[in-house]
Amino acid sequence: MKPDKKTELLANWQTLQRIFIRPENEESGAALVRYMEQILFGLHDFLKQHVGITREASLKDLSDRFTDSRISQNPSKKLADVIKSIIEDIAPHAVNVSSPYFIGHMTSAIPFFMVHLQTIMGALNQNPVKLETSKVVSVSERQALAKIHRLIYGFDDAFYDEHIQKPESTLGGFTDDGTLANITALWTARNVLFKPKNGFDGVESQGMAAAYQAYDIRRTVILVSQLGHYSLRKAGGILGIGHDNVLSIDVDSQNRINISKLEAAIREIQKDNQTKILAIVGIAGATETGTVDPLPQIADICAEHSIHFHADAAWGGPTLMSEKYRHLLSGIERADSVTIDGHKQFYMPMSCGMVYFKDPVIMDAIAYHAAYINRPGSVDLGIRSLEGSRAATSLILSGALEIMGRGGYALLIDHGIEIAKAFAEEIRKRHLFELTTPPELNILTYRIFPENMKNEWKTADHHQKLEINDYLNHVNITVQRLQREAGKSFVSRTTLRRRGCEDIVVLRSVLMNPMTDIRILQEILDEQEKIYQQQFGV
Amino acid sequence: MKPDKKTELLANWQTLQRIFIRPENEESGAALVRYMEQILFGLHDFLKQHVGITREASLKDLSDRFTDSRISQNPSKKLADVIKSIIEDIAPHAVNVSSPYFIGHMTSAIPFFMVHLQTIMGALNQNPVKLETSKVVSVSERQALAKIHRLIYGFDDAFYDEHIQKPESTLGGFTDDGTLANITALWTARNVLFKPKNGFDGVESQGMAAAYQAYDIRRTVILVSQLGHYSLRKAGGILGIGHDNVLSIDVDSQNRINISKLEAAIREIQKDNQTKILAIVGIAGATETGTVDPLPQIADICAEHSIHFHADAAWGGPTLMSEKYRHLLSGIERADSVTIDGHKQFYMPMSCGMVYFKDPVIMDAIAYHAAYINRPGSVDLGIRSLEGSRAATSLILSGALEIMGRGGYALLIDHGIEIAKAFAEEIRKRHLFELTTPPELNILTYRIFPENMKNEWKTADHHQKLEINDYLNHVNITVQRLQREAGKSFVSRTTLRRRGCEDIVVLRSVLMNPMTDIRILQEILDEQEKIYQQQFGV
Repeated sequence: MKPDKKTELLANWQTLQRIFIRPENEESGAALVRYMEQILFGLHDFLKQHVGITREASLKDLSDRFTDSRISQNPSKKLADVIKSIIEDIAPHAVNVSSPYFIGHMTSAIPFFMVHLQTIMGALNQNPVKLETSKVVSVSERQALAKIHRLIYGFDDAFYDEHIQKPESTLGGFTDDGTLANITALWTARNVLFKPKNGFDGVESQGMAAAYQAYDIRRTVILVSQLGHYSLRKAGGILGIGHDNVLSIDVDSQNRINISKLEAAIREIQKDNQTKILAIVGIAGATETGTVDPLPQIADICAEHSIHFHADAAWGGPTLMSEKYRHLLSGIERADSVTIDGHKQFYMPMSCGMVYFKDPVIMDAIAYHAAYINRPGSVDLGIRSLEGSRAATSLILSGALEIMGRGGYALLIDHGIEIAKAFAEEIRKRHLFELTTPPELNILTYRIFPENMKNEWKTADHHQKLEINDYLNHVNITVQRLQREAGKSFVSRTTLRRRGCEDIVVLRSVLMNPMTDIRILQEILDEQEKIYQQQFGV
Repeated sequence: MKPDKKTELLANWQTLQRIFIRPENEESGAALVRYMEQILFGLHDFLKQHVGITREASLKDLSDRFTDSRISQNPSKKLADVIKSIIEDIAPHAVNVSSPYFIGHMTSAIPFFMVHLQTIMGALNQNPVKLETSKVVSVSERQALAKIHRLIYGFDDAFYDEHIQKPESTLGGFTDDGTLANITALWTARNVLFKPKNGFDGVESQGMAAAYQAYDIRRTVILVSQLGHYSLRKAGGILGIGHDNVLSIDVDSQNRINISKLEAAIREIQKDNQTKILAIVGIAGATETGTVDPLPQIADICAEHSIHFHADAAWGGPTLMSEKYRHLLSGIERADSVTIDGHKQFYMPMSCGMVYFKDPVIMDAIAYHAAYINRPGSVDLGIRSLEGSRAATSLILSGALEIMGRGGYALLIDHGIEIAKAFAEEIRKRHLFELTTPPELNILTYRIFPENMKNEWKTADHHQKLEINDYLNHVNITVQRLQREAGKSFVSRTTLRRRGCEDIVVLRSVLMNPMTDIRILQEILDEQEKIYQQQFGV
């Protein structure tokens, strides 16, 4: 049979076996390297121009291109063609999260070495669920976990010498993302609260209704400020607590949980002896405003009432790397559990969540064993984990910690916080804008609020204020959308909700890309001013 | 300052910025490609020899090498050094899951193109939680989901034309692994069962105890055969049902759920009007034995009693790619939800779970919205998902489907099933062994059971049988361990538990590597015979 493109693509046993072994001859080896080169540099050309979030209409067009629900019988592409089509057809319509003009979300540029580490993780293809499919990688993962645990809790050498490789101890775990890390923390706290007691085998065995009966209560609540991430409500839903029982506490003028309102809520709840508080969550870097709750005060309250203290530091955790700014998170070392995301300010590729616990045996509350793996007493990491099989993302984190050092990460953290301050200054200087939440870490929100309306506001009555606010919301929604559709810059928008106030639509910027400088930020504001003038100018 | 190795490594702003941009000059570009070459081929040399699961003692030695809990202040390694140390220090002590002699777990060799696809996923670094960080990748993910949905359910063109890109429809979702897929399926089923009704806002809002009160029950159960994966018990625990309420139904002589016992259990449960059945799970490829439950009969039972039918096809799902063997899974198209793992028989790198639903709007039962993303009515994939941020693994699956075609995957599936049959034949032929569970898909278990003891067994009384079984368990544990420690081959072991019978320790083999042929399997048995003779021979 004459080899032509079509027959080459036909799946047959010989070609199939060939793709499972590394090529032995130089020519095909060189081809594999060439493909990697295309991946590393081919993407670059397409992505360096625009951030790539364009009009809704184009989404409709894109959707129309992906409507094939059949898997073709024969292979339809070779690897080279797949790479080509990702570079030519996917990448130009993907979002260039690595652009320094993309300051809208917590996804950003990653150092290029992360792509190499991701590749090596894939090539080794270890599965840390059990030692028999990971071996040294499980041992190395325990070391990576201890390093971040020490960054948070700072216990002494004796503590880490004892627990770092002790099979019975679990300092934390890797999860797919911060949502699962938050769920893992609250799952553990739930099981500790409703632990086995006389005549009751524990909530994990018998369920929530039985737990309430055994403990003679009717309701469990989780307390968090109104800026808590939505994954906390999701955790309440999944765990059988009910997301209505994840109670929102108002924030103060600095967007931190209002401690007197928190205390009042606790007093109110405690009047009802049929309600238990499962946990209080302190936020270390709120998703919308980047603000940090007063962690020491939350720690005091939790200690006083023996309540589980969870710190959601998915965003802010790596601030601990900075000698200059780590004080912003002080009190976190008193949290019973802490969430940190690797794909956020550790600049790892999607996705890596982590959860840490102060008590190295508390995760026994969520232990599961299986007959074919994970026998009791084994060192298998899958015993105390929400997930089963998972990628060995600890290899990426370990490599990154070596390549960057604390110092390298500190530079990134410091840059983010300082450029956010400079940006806030710039916003304050411009008459068209109002800074709505000043940055504490590296996130801020602001809105367009024209000078003349600021003046009107001063003398407006309640009804007029509502009208002005509605108009401003409309203006900000429009300008954000038009800027996004223009495709050069991306700032996100969100809605600040405060009890007793109108909803305020604001522009939100997350400053984590080291290539984002003040000049770029000025350009972004310039463009917003221009769009405003074109659309709403007189 | 004279540049030397130490100062080069010091984190400073200029070098830091440099690692965020792709190198512009040829020399540094070439270095990045060279590193990829090292990753692709450097690992090869270390891994081609042994499977690499060695003695417990060596684990202790390894642990002693990973006891550093401090993150160094300055960078301690460059990328090249990290790659070198992974190749030289990690890889030799990792597990060579790609060896054709590694037939012990569901982790195996992956085609080399998977590593390229993993790399491209990392380089694009999209986050499908929201359109603003993924755009075309979200649209393309919907297509990949529709392809697998169609493979399972086989609805007509009109169905897929309608739902494939309709924002309100969700044919399924990607999760980190099969555990999370099973949890997502049962979470959805729970919320449908305890949906809002007069005076009750639904279980997701109000929790399990309130749900039981509203529906006037005391208990919810999930039914699955005793071969159900442990993630199902975990799901029961997390969801507030209690894992004791995940009830084990006995299997029949072919390791399939015993339908008359299932029916008897349902009758028994229904006598108590305070207990509801949340779901019945049918297994399509049991983790321990590879067996498939009688899905059509489970579907009939679920239809009759209006019970959610979940199919756990984490392992067996891709059998649907084979025209020759897809009938083994018939009935799966009647399941309300289906779990399939990508990192198992789709041969994707760690990790990729998937869950599919017959009803394209049922996942509304788990929808969550956040103010800064995921507004109602948007196409953001994070709205109906257990996870928040996650990697765009659909890019890998889409590429793999194009490169392999159904035909390519069918060859792998057919090989696995047929080599398992051949292996079973070989085991039956050898006097030292007993085939304990014959293969239905590509997993089988067997044990060492010497000829003389088989003869003794025939005339033994109950007590003598217990003694023989204990001895056999000891023999099999020993031989499996010694073979593992020798480092050439790896077969796992598990314990078959049958009600009213002694626990039987068996050797378990999972046949998915296309390079595993009958000669290799004979070698593995030869080695076991040799170890047995050395340790227990007379």
